[in-house]
Amino acid sequence: MGDSVRVGIAALEARVQGILEICGVAPMPAGAVARVIVAGERDGCASHGLHRLEQCLQVLKAGQVEPEAEPRLAAGEGPILRVDAGGGFASAAWELARPALIARSRELGLAALAITDCLHFAALWPEVEDLARAGLASISMCPSYATVAPFGGTEPLLGTNPFAFGWPRPDADPYVFDFATSVAARGEVELHRKAGTELPEGWAVDAKGAPTREPQAALDGALLTFGAHKGTAISAMIELLAGAMLGDRMSVEAREFAGGAALPPRHGALILAFDPGTFAAGSGRDPGREGERLIEALGGQTGRLPSQRRYAARKISEADGIALSAEQMATLDRLSEGGLDAVREPG
Amino acid sequence: MGDSVRVGIAALEARVQGILEICGVAPMPAGAVARVIVAGERDGCASHGLHRLEQCLQVLKAGQVEPEAEPRLAAGEGPILRVDAGGGFASAAWELARPALIARSRELGLAALAITDCLHFAALWPEVEDLARAGLASISMCPSYATVAPFGGTEPLLGTNPFAFGWPRPDADPYVFDFATSVAARGEVELHRKAGTELPEGWAVDAKGAPTREPQAALDGALLTFGAHKGTAISAMIELLAGAMLGDRMSVEAREFAGGAALPPRHGALILAFDPGTFAAGSGRDPGREGERLIEALGGQTGRLPSQRRYAARKISEADGIALSAEQMATLDRLSEGGLDAVREPG
Repeated sequence: MGDSVRVGIAALEARVQGILEICGVAPMPAGAVARVIVAGERDGCASHGLHRLEQCLQVLKAGQVEPEAEPRLAAGEGPILRVDAGGGFASAAWELARPALIARSRELGLAALAITDCLHFAALWPEVEDLARAGLASISMCPSYATVAPFGGTEPLLGTNPFAFGWPRPDADPYVFDFATSVAARGEVELHRKAGTELPEGWAVDAKGAPTREPQAALDGALLTFGAHKGTAISAMIELLAGAMLGDRMSVEAREFAGGAALPPRHGALILAFDPGTFAAGSGRDPGREGERLIEALGGQTGRLPSQRRYAARKISEADGIALSAEQMATLDRLSEGGLDAVREPG
Repeated sequence: MGDSVRVGIAALEARVQGILEICGVAPMPAGAVARVIVAGERDGCASHGLHRLEQCLQVLKAGQVEPEAEPRLAAGEGPILRVDAGGGFASAAWELARPALIARSRELGLAALAITDCLHFAALWPEVEDLARAGLASISMCPSYATVAPFGGTEPLLGTNPFAFGWPRPDADPYVFDFATSVAARGEVELHRKAGTELPEGWAVDAKGAPTREPQAALDGALLTFGAHKGTAISAMIELLAGAMLGDRMSVEAREFAGGAALPPRHGALILAFDPGTFAAGSGRDPGREGERLIEALGGQTGRLPSQRRYAARKISEADGIALSAEQMATLDRLSEGGLDAVREPG
């Protein structure tokens, strides 16, 4: 890290947005994508940080995302809001729909946002954290592309299907978790492949359904779900609620649409938002204070809360800027100068 | 099983209801409790069948459930319905609120039912199956009493916190799963204790936080969550959404209220119901047909869908009656004749 430099968050967002615009992405989605990519880097999430920028551009170059799509929000009057991303980036659809989802959840106590036909490459924690900072609890989930075998099976049927939850805390950063329902995220397997290291046992099977610790064999075969049959059940639930129920692609179809698993897939996502104050009304209890008892006990026993490491990395980034390696800086320079022509092949 | 007899479902329901009424339970809750207990026995769920009847009566004898409570439904006009069980049985609150939840979910596309202050002893699959048979997808969850340590911890903080999901299938029994977020349900540990068998590894720690395979030591110590930190995250989510958010007890408090872990606990429960047709409106896709592709592929790869064994047992019970052992028949006779006085001590 001798060659690393510190770059301010806003400056890095502007730089990433600029690259996306050079490559033909309209300013609104370019800004949204830049913010979520920089948020990942800011929080020390290697798999969802700047690493994703070139992936987004690869998708763009492959013609699998609409760079000028304008997401359209249909808010209606009931608890279900829909935003059609029009084949554009999920982050743009989210930023457009977020204020309406927050307002509707506060009004009715419960609301759902269905995002459809979006290119989804980001983590889910930015969404549930946004909602928690607005005082709302939330669940977010989406399919992916089929790279995961069900418990007892051997072939890719499910996606890594992330599941995230956020809970507002009165005087602390929100309680947030966000995990792949596969044993590991595909991004983690990619990092092992790039580092030339073996996978832990139990992560994957090869193309013949036999257990493997070789990253490339895992990528060619199938990952496994966490938690045996229970993790598989949750992953299947995500396919049904955030795929079939939204009238959008499930993971098998998303993979077919993308022509493989090299690029982020296009599908839908489901977010459920809850206003704890409305749910607790009349109980005489304060959900925030009650929740603290659990969260403090969890932290006390386990020594660490989910997302705590991200929040700690964020504090440093906010104070000192985000540390970028010489390689990361070189990538930004290459993309700034060459635009889409400078984007490397996937893989 | 040479001494087993077959009893018709309706006849067994009437018998169980009669026992509950003899013991002072009002007819409405007695009927609801009888139906859910017999449904468990009918489906071959040893841990949630007749086994639960004496437990319910033990709770009653201990003064920890209100036998004549009349659940009160506050349906309002929005997506949140509340039913205050008034310290009575959850099953009665559910039967009262079910039609309103179904109607509201169909009307708005999304609705939640908060059940509060209920004695909860049943599985969650009857609720999500009911909703699936009405064409609705649903999620159900509730805390329990603190018997489960978080991943990385050693002391009971979480309940076994069940999580259930139901999905309607056009031409088949619903896709339903229902599992404890502990590695195993407490009922399974009880069955090992009664059978004098060791627990599988990884199920529990003893009172000092050391791994144990001894059922009684596990009951005195703590169970572990399924799926390491991911299972713990889901269990904590259930505490927050179905405990703190409803203004009702979380598992630590439910255990304090019950004065231990010998009897089923009193707390709340949360049910979310979704109308897939409303969510998919305008997509041009049929969620039922899309869902079948996933479910059929799951069944094809794994050889068995969740709940399939229950449905198979149910078919036999419906055709031939429910098989009861001589011991089960003797228990029913003892309780019929002796009422509350004949109820044995817990444990």
